[in-house]
Amino acid sequence: MSRPSGRSLDQMRPVSLETNVSKHAEGSCLVRFGDTHVLCTASVEDRVPPFLRGQGQGWVTAEYGMLPRATAERTDREAAKGRQTGRTQEIQRLIGRSLRAVTDVKAMGEITVKIDCDVLQADGGTRTAAITGSYVALALAFRHLTSIGFLKAQPLTDSVAAVSCGLYQGAPVLDLDYAEDSSAQADANFVLTGKGGIVEIQGTAEKTPFQEAEFLALLALARKGIGELTALQAAALAR
Amino acid sequence: MSRPSGRSLDQMRPVSLETNVSKHAEGSCLVRFGDTHVLCTASVEDRVPPFLRGQGQGWVTAEYGMLPRATAERTDREAAKGRQTGRTQEIQRLIGRSLRAVTDVKAMGEITVKIDCDVLQADGGTRTAAITGSYVALALAFRHLTSIGFLKAQPLTDSVAAVSCGLYQGAPVLDLDYAEDSSAQADANFVLTGKGGIVEIQGTAEKTPFQEAEFLALLALARKGIGELTALQAAALAR
Amino acid sequence: MSRPSGRSLDQMRPVSLETNVSKHAEGSCLVRFGDTHVLCTASVEDRVPPFLRGQGQGWVTAEYGMLPRATAERTDREAAKGRQTGRTQEIQRLIGRSLRAVTDVKAMGEITVKIDCDVLQADGGTRTAAITGSYVALALAFRHLTSIGFLKAQPLTDSVAAVSCGLYQGAPVLDLDYAEDSSAQADANFVLTGKGGIVEIQGTAEKTPFQEAEFLALLALARKGIGELTALQAAALAR
Amino acid sequence: MSRPSGRSLDQMRPVSLETNVSKHAEGSCLVRFGDTHVLCTASVEDRVPPFLRGQGQGWVTAEYGMLPRATAERTDREAAKGRQTGRTQEIQRLIGRSLRAVTDVKAMGEITVKIDCDVLQADGGTRTAAITGSYVALALAFRHLTSIGFLKAQPLTDSVAAVSCGLYQGAPVLDLDYAEDSSAQADANFVLTGKGGIVEIQGTAEKTPFQEAEFLALLALARKGIGELTALQAAALAR
Amino acid sequence: MSRPSGRSLDQMRPVSLETNVSKHAEGSCLVRFGDTHVLCTASVEDRVPPFLRGQGQGWVTAEYGMLPRATAERTDREAAKGRQTGRTQEIQRLIGRSLRAVTDVKAMGEITVKIDCDVLQADGGTRTAAITGSYVALALAFRHLTSIGFLKAQPLTDSVAAVSCGLYQGAPVLDLDYAEDSSAQADANFVLTGKGGIVEIQGTAEKTPFQEAEFLALLALARKGIGELTALQAAALAR
Amino acid sequence: MSRPSGRSLDQMRPVSLETNVSKHAEGSCLVRFGDTHVLCTASVEDRVPPFLRGQGQGWVTAEYGMLPRATAERTDREAAKGRQTGRTQEIQRLIGRSLRAVTDVKAMGEITVKIDCDVLQADGGTRTAAITGSYVALALAFRHLTSIGFLKAQPLTDSVAAVSCGLYQGAPVLDLDYAEDSSAQADANFVLTGKGGIVEIQGTAEKTPFQEAEFLALLALARKGIGELTALQAAALAR
Repeated sequence: MSRPSGRSLDQMRPVSLETNVSKHAEGSCLVRFGDTHVLCTASVEDRVPPFLRGQGQGWVTAEYGMLPRATAERTDREAAKGRQTGRTQEIQRLIGRSLRAVTDVKAMGEITVKIDCDVLQADGGTRTAAITGSYVALALAFRHLTSIGFLKAQPLTDSVAAVSCGLYQGAPVLDLDYAEDSSAQADANFVLTGKGGIVEIQGTAEKTPFQEAEFLALLALARKGIGELTALQAAALAR
Repeated sequence: MSRPSGRSLDQMRPVSLETNVSKHAEGSCLVRFGDTHVLCTASVEDRVPPFLRGQGQGWVTAEYGMLPRATAERTDREAAKGRQTGRTQEIQRLIGRSLRAVTDVKAMGEITVKIDCDVLQADGGTRTAAITGSYVALALAFRHLTSIGFLKAQPLTDSVAAVSCGLYQGAPVLDLDYAEDSSAQADANFVLTGKGGIVEIQGTAEKTPFQEAEFLALLALARKGIGELTALQAAALAR
Repeated sequence: MSRPSGRSLDQMRPVSLETNVSKHAEGSCLVRFGDTHVLCTASVEDRVPPFLRGQGQGWVTAEYGMLPRATAERTDREAAKGRQTGRTQEIQRLIGRSLRAVTDVKAMGEITVKIDCDVLQADGGTRTAAITGSYVALALAFRHLTSIGFLKAQPLTDSVAAVSCGLYQGAPVLDLDYAEDSSAQADANFVLTGKGGIVEIQGTAEKTPFQEAEFLALLALARKGIGELTALQAAALAR
Repeated sequence: MSRPSGRSLDQMRPVSLETNVSKHAEGSCLVRFGDTHVLCTASVEDRVPPFLRGQGQGWVTAEYGMLPRATAERTDREAAKGRQTGRTQEIQRLIGRSLRAVTDVKAMGEITVKIDCDVLQADGGTRTAAITGSYVALALAFRHLTSIGFLKAQPLTDSVAAVSCGLYQGAPVLDLDYAEDSSAQADANFVLTGKGGIVEIQGTAEKTPFQEAEFLALLALARKGIGELTALQAAALAR
Repeated sequence: MSRPSGRSLDQMRPVSLETNVSKHAEGSCLVRFGDTHVLCTASVEDRVPPFLRGQGQGWVTAEYGMLPRATAERTDREAAKGRQTGRTQEIQRLIGRSLRAVTDVKAMGEITVKIDCDVLQADGGTRTAAITGSYVALALAFRHLTSIGFLKAQPLTDSVAAVSCGLYQGAPVLDLDYAEDSSAQADANFVLTGKGGIVEIQGTAEKTPFQEAEFLALLALARKGIGELTALQAAALAR
Repeated sequence: MSRPSGRSLDQMRPVSLETNVSKHAEGSCLVRFGDTHVLCTASVEDRVPPFLRGQGQGWVTAEYGMLPRATAERTDREAAKGRQTGRTQEIQRLIGRSLRAVTDVKAMGEITVKIDCDVLQADGGTRTAAITGSYVALALAFRHLTSIGFLKAQPLTDSVAAVSCGLYQGAPVLDLDYAEDSSAQADANFVLTGKGGIVEIQGTAEKTPFQEAEFLALLALARKGIGELTALQAAALAR
């Protein structure tokens, strides 16, 4: 079996994390997983959602969007349709949970960091790229808050990154692109921390159920890929 | 450690599957996982969504709702607010995917079966109860279509059921109720077929990441619970 | 003329009022008028709508919904469509007014009781069943507030119940079911108190106008039916 | 007891029905009940709603709106809020039903007449004025369709008009204005045909239930008022 | 070239400004530009939008609507569709800006004047008629506030009026009616003050771009027309 | 007077037009006016809006959006709010009209080109940058359709570009950035063709009305700036 891109089974697409791409945002990162490009910005607001008011803790939340022609076929603009799809809401909830899993919200003070992930171009794996880039944007925003003296220390307890793996023509492969994703038998998104903890697993059999051994093979691939992403995140933040 | 309900770690709540509870629906099941009660109805429509028209195949889809006072605190009615929450959309997409994983849609003809899962009372695990009851409602609707001669055979390839497991006070436990769910460190929903195939896994670390061994312990519990649910489904359909 | 159900002209369907059916609600009642089943819950909130704030009085309001497959043909879910129909809004306004007509809101303190009426199965007369069951749920909620010492006395001045009557094949009949309702020449919903006061009358000629004598015959039937409902309400609350 | 306006108990406000006030509409009438002014236009469309297609019959429907400053306090514009209130929907359904009760829809052919009732100024009784004026606009539209040969005869079987009556300071009064309506103990809207048939009755006890004798007194007043309105409608259409 | 209405190239339609047409509004004007009729009401509210609170200044804003059958073909009611069109929003923003350009908001105190412009009948030029009539309604509301002692002086610095001009069959013409507007090559709306200052210019080439000389000819026509409108406004306010 | 950016009064910001930046779109251009960056994509669809069907002509339309953190303060996501603002709709209507003014829609065949303009970063002048970049994306899409033989010739009759000018501290200046725009006395957006024809003029006095001579000075500046933009467009399309 050969992958459409010619990659080996356990090979990520070329990944880049370009930081400080926004003139305005407190933290920003343009993440590229091959032809999937997501702009992640972190915006600091000095208030928390109503359900947290007066509790002395902060909040991290995320929104996700896709430009209409990020995809091969143009998709209708959600703002024009007047509602976000279930898929959009599912993804933005996932991003927010993933980031909060490595954030000590009690150490933030009563502020909110809103992450906006906007897909400029899509070729599979937009949610995993978004999580990976969002972590960098969030870390930069916290670094900014530390540098201006608002925070004494970064309230991050670990790093977090994500990748999707799947069964493609019977074989487990790492970092599905669109050509693979659209015909995979099963796929799973893994969100892991830099230290190897599991934050989220979302495994879905598209057509036929899969077996536990297959699932564990996907998890092993994800560990490899996320190890590489973690190193790239550290390098981007060290620049 | 003892569970709030006094159950052993690998013990399900009392589960019942009451069939044919609706005067109108082609298939129906009132499923109870302890104090979580979900009414599942299956409605047959003689058309398919636009993206499937003319392809000679059918479709299975699901909608999910919760009565406002199904919960300890009343929640606002989604119809009154004018939009479904992200959580609702996430759940109904999950139910639909789970059912389609055991349905041979090509053997259905151009019809749609719409499953409605309405939570009459909630005490944790509404989505897993909904999947478990929906399978029964769907099977009854297919049986009805077979009995009237519309279908020659049931287009089901396997059964499907679901349960949630989690880490509660450090220990892996089966079938979280609300008291456990709201303070679990991590929880995972497992959707498995009667033959043991994996359809969906959704694992989420609520506060701190979890480890692979912990995850595998949850999966083992799920296999036990879903084995019991599968037997109950078979018994309900045999009545 | 014989009625589809075989009932005599002035005969109600079998009516039952099952109380305390909800684990969470302060008051609840599952009302059945034959095959019409409505779950009524009463939720107490310790605030009033903005237009009443600071006036030292309470409020009673109602919401109404129908499960999608409560009906012979599945109807679209209002939450999915993003708006409640005019019919839904008309009914929930009617239920609220009916309950307030027997409630001394000045004796409630600044609380709101929200009644949710959800039709689990429909066979005509859902709004009249909802009013009849809602009164029981409301009375139970007030009883709960009295038992915990929040209220000194029940703020109810009377009971209230409702029934629909209509001209079916030229004859006035009591408590229309769906088969009758869909082909009646005229129908009227009557909301009366236990003492016989008129709270609401909604009479509608579906096809041809009706005469005053016919209208008075419907009112007489309603008095008989509501007398029976009032006795059932008292019995349910006495259990 | 004296009425705020100085009218006698059974006296209507000055009523006028100005016809053909719109350059564009097929039929139009500006109706005034004292300071309540409603512009009614009838628009003919050569199609019917989906549920009637291919049945060879027509449809009459109505929409209702109120200019934001028609009222003493400005009310928010429904178009800006993005939804019509329950009250608006209740009223427009009432107007539509009232007009259809005197229309032989099978004699219309497959067309729809849409009545728009827009309240330019409100002083109580907007729905009853709207019904009364709408009948005139509808009759003019049918007359237009007859004059151009589209219809052979007017498909109207009777005329229809409406008035509200109420218990004000203990006395039954005819044609409530805003000052009376806002403090009435009970009020009822009556929609009657020119021949005296009852089309709709909507009686509501605002604060305390009312008695059958009181209700019959209101109906008697309505008959008197609607008799006068019927004569004014005939005169307007004869001009 | 002759205009459909027979007017000369620089001739306005007959214009009238009827004042105090609303029983409730603090200021009102029914403006007619030929068959275009717009009801303008001014409503005073004793608060300002959130972004202005505590700054000691006032605000003037406008909303615009069109009755469904104001037009030759009935247009759907925006309240029923649940959203205002882009055109509606564009026009109401223009009206608000135009009025604020002649209002000293710092001299108003913390109040808002809301102008509602509702088109009762349309024949081209509804936005320019609306601006012209709104100024009169606003001036009357300010006069009312002065007369009751709330304001010491009118906070108006100038008058404002508007007219549309266009290239019709190659010639510049003043005050386009619908027949001209729908086939004009280019049209421009001009909003000028009584003293001749330019408040807004909106020029649009419908089919082919236009030249600077043509544009200046349109501006000259607008000056003439707005001079006449300014005189009519002064006369209306002097009555 | 000196400009915040140090530019001379008639100096544009650095402008760049980067072409073919999207893997998927038929035409694309990332336009930068200084720190204002807009991604413009052109999507070809083989159908036209309903009002044009069967007329053998095409259509060009545009949508506009702004990423939430394109601005100094984060603005709420329109998709999350469920509606586009009036400003957004006004801008996208302007872009569509501007492009159609230089397109021979009869020479396109029954296709639609949808332009999406998404502001990645905003610093004033987003709508004028969007028009300028959209023309390049549109021309590239038409070139693509010509290269694949769908069109025989480009259906463009001219080029089109836009710039804003304003009165800043009393002086007319070219190409307002955000610092200037937010405190300008008046500003005007000019949309001109490459041959010098006027497509759109939108002049607005923010605080005090402006004079004709001032307006003509702004137009002269616009001619200079648009001359430069036209040359840059030609160069970008020649690469």
